[in-house]
Amino acid sequence: MQYIKTPMKGMPEQLPADMQLREYLLGKIKATYGSYGFSLIETPAIEHIENLTSKQGGENEKLIFKILKRGEKLAKADGADELCDCGLRYDLTVPLSRFYANNMAQLPTPFKAMQIGNVWRADRPQRGRFRQFTQCDIDILGEGSFLAEIELISATASMLAQLEFSNFKVKVNDRRILKAMAACCGFAEENYDDIFIILDKIDKIGLDGVKAELLGAGYDSSSVERYCAFFENLGKGMSCTEFCADRLDGFLDPAVLSDLEYIINCARATAVGEMQIVFDPTLVRGMSYYTGPIFEIELSDFGSSVAGGGRYDEMIGKYTNAKVPACGFSIGFERIITLLKERGYRIPDQKKRTALLIDKKIGREELLGALQRAARLRAGGETALIVYRAKNVRHQKETLEKEGYTEFLELPEKD
Amino acid sequence: MQYIKTPMKGMPEQLPADMQLREYLLGKIKATYGSYGFSLIETPAIEHIENLTSKQGGENEKLIFKILKRGEKLAKADGADELCDCGLRYDLTVPLSRFYANNMAQLPTPFKAMQIGNVWRADRPQRGRFRQFTQCDIDILGEGSFLAEIELISATASMLAQLEFSNFKVKVNDRRILKAMAACCGFAEENYDDIFIILDKIDKIGLDGVKAELLGAGYDSSSVERYCAFFENLGKGMSCTEFCADRLDGFLDPAVLSDLEYIINCARATAVGEMQIVFDPTLVRGMSYYTGPIFEIELSDFGSSVAGGGRYDEMIGKYTNAKVPACGFSIGFERIITLLKERGYRIPDQKKRTALLIDKKIGREELLGALQRAARLRAGGETALIVYRAKNVRHQKETLEKEGYTEFLELPEKD
Repeated sequence: MQYIKTPMKGMPEQLPADMQLREYLLGKIKATYGSYGFSLIETPAIEHIENLTSKQGGENEKLIFKILKRGEKLAKADGADELCDCGLRYDLTVPLSRFYANNMAQLPTPFKAMQIGNVWRADRPQRGRFRQFTQCDIDILGEGSFLAEIELISATASMLAQLEFSNFKVKVNDRRILKAMAACCGFAEENYDDIFIILDKIDKIGLDGVKAELLGAGYDSSSVERYCAFFENLGKGMSCTEFCADRLDGFLDPAVLSDLEYIINCARATAVGEMQIVFDPTLVRGMSYYTGPIFEIELSDFGSSVAGGGRYDEMIGKYTNAKVPACGFSIGFERIITLLKERGYRIPDQKKRTALLIDKKIGREELLGALQRAARLRAGGETALIVYRAKNVRHQKETLEKEGYTEFLELPEKD
Repeated sequence: MQYIKTPMKGMPEQLPADMQLREYLLGKIKATYGSYGFSLIETPAIEHIENLTSKQGGENEKLIFKILKRGEKLAKADGADELCDCGLRYDLTVPLSRFYANNMAQLPTPFKAMQIGNVWRADRPQRGRFRQFTQCDIDILGEGSFLAEIELISATASMLAQLEFSNFKVKVNDRRILKAMAACCGFAEENYDDIFIILDKIDKIGLDGVKAELLGAGYDSSSVERYCAFFENLGKGMSCTEFCADRLDGFLDPAVLSDLEYIINCARATAVGEMQIVFDPTLVRGMSYYTGPIFEIELSDFGSSVAGGGRYDEMIGKYTNAKVPACGFSIGFERIITLLKERGYRIPDQKKRTALLIDKKIGREELLGALQRAARLRAGGETALIVYRAKNVRHQKETLEKEGYTEFLELPEKD
């Protein structure tokens, strides 16, 4: 059998320099989120196929890597539908919901969870887009008030500010506002998700494009007209909040709007650095499981969002049979890595690194001495590398300098 | 469809307290191995089925979680053998070999790799044994001399010593010594692996048990007698090394023994703390791919080994078509975690943790003040948690104390 040296299609490999940056970012994330009282947990990569295909994951469910049954159970499988009993997780929210239901007796209320781990999607591989990638989520479970939203937004924005990102914008909306807008224009409730998917394209196709798509999908033209007029007049003469309060009167509890304003004010007042945060009534977020506020962070030097989340009060109850309010914010770890690389981000200097270059003909006694010298450097908190001296020592040193070595000792020392 | 709240059979979940210990151990491992100049890399969890079933993994190949093909390729699959194109890795050595072959042009020589990641084995789940677990490997690729062995043993022993394990013993042997012993007793080369598997049981069944099993397997009785007499007389009157040099004369290059002694001396002289390290001619290590020195670390309060490794000079060449010397040491991360827990290991004190307990009826203005107070604490490097005050505030504080909170502020403060 042939050994294959390239990775599976779409699977990433991290070289040492990449890993240094990833570790640095992970450290920042853990420290910032930790300071807000989020606790790290870990859920398994493999989940029950039933949980992965239970319509919680939207489009992602089509992209599951399914795992074959084993032993007798595989032998007994009757047809293609029975071949698999589990698969790789495509996000961290489904495993979190299951985890919380399974362990809630041992967890505090509210539970502030931080999860950092790989997820897998059998997506068409593209440049910079992999089939295995790291997600990084924070969630607050069991907290029904806006305290959850404030803390999630403040923590995520603080983390980005500490990486010296200053050009980001937090956009906030509420699913109930989206629904009220659709309702007051006369759309039927069963069409809301479809309408929101079209509205979500507004950044790419503009309001005219949205209108054309809605009409093309066969929606009532007077509803479409009213819906699009709504967005056209947004922010003209009055604030978005006032405008929505005025137009959605009777369709929306006014507290939804005042809470949203309060969330925005508090997040702005508590995050590290200056934060641009706005109410954006066109913000949709793909997942239909959101029930309240939704949010997204956009970086101006990146096409799409780098973080997204919202409140999903109905999901965990499907595991626990009792309603558990929940709210989460997920950052696009891989996107942030890409941006840091593009910016040529330099990791602040770390420990002193010394390379001990050993003559190939060194005696055993002298080699032991060199090894002990390295041991002393390490005991003093430094990094010490022992390698045989290459013929082209200049080239060797240049290579080692690229790896961060600044001190060189050639041993045995010449008298 | 039913939502399932327990994890898949044998899949571990890590609660916050577990994760704290795991993160602490990971930090120690990364710092110690980093100080020796090992660089972190990451390989994908999913590997080509061809690489996973190419006889590099011994018994582990029977335990692969296989992944179903997707889309058209699945539709075209002709029979059960064609259903899968990939699977989850069962160790970190197969992916490392592939990774090195694929990226060697960009990697330094020698390459000192550190890998920490999950592996999966569809093993029968047992108490304390999971189907997903973390492995932690260091490998030196491209270094043919004993410098590799010395550094690997020294680094691993130093790491254990820093966790205040003092009761461990490093056992060292060489596959060439094992082979020479079998050869000088007249066994046929094709039977070596089988004989070594039986010898490997000596700790459990004793020398008499080994003798019985060898005879039961049909080996020549005079060979078996000579083989067992060899181990019976070991260490009587002379050192193991002298004994082997004497008995294996003509079957073994004497440099193998003197190199082994040198490795032992240098590792002992450079590791942190006192290290018990011995030459043990009965040490086998399961994998048949080892070609030279092999080593294992045994902790006296743990039944089996907590770390194992050795030289495997023939494996990477199967990917590169050019021989690349290689040597690695893998620690049993999960076993060390188990031991630390059993010992009641306490993580050295970290940051100050304050919980702000907020009255449920707090006004919006005062809540904003509390949020800003938390922000100031966080900016000062502390952890600050904001939660609503429970009815039973004493119980709430006790719970928070268990999570590490030492300071409590009840807000708004009473005049």
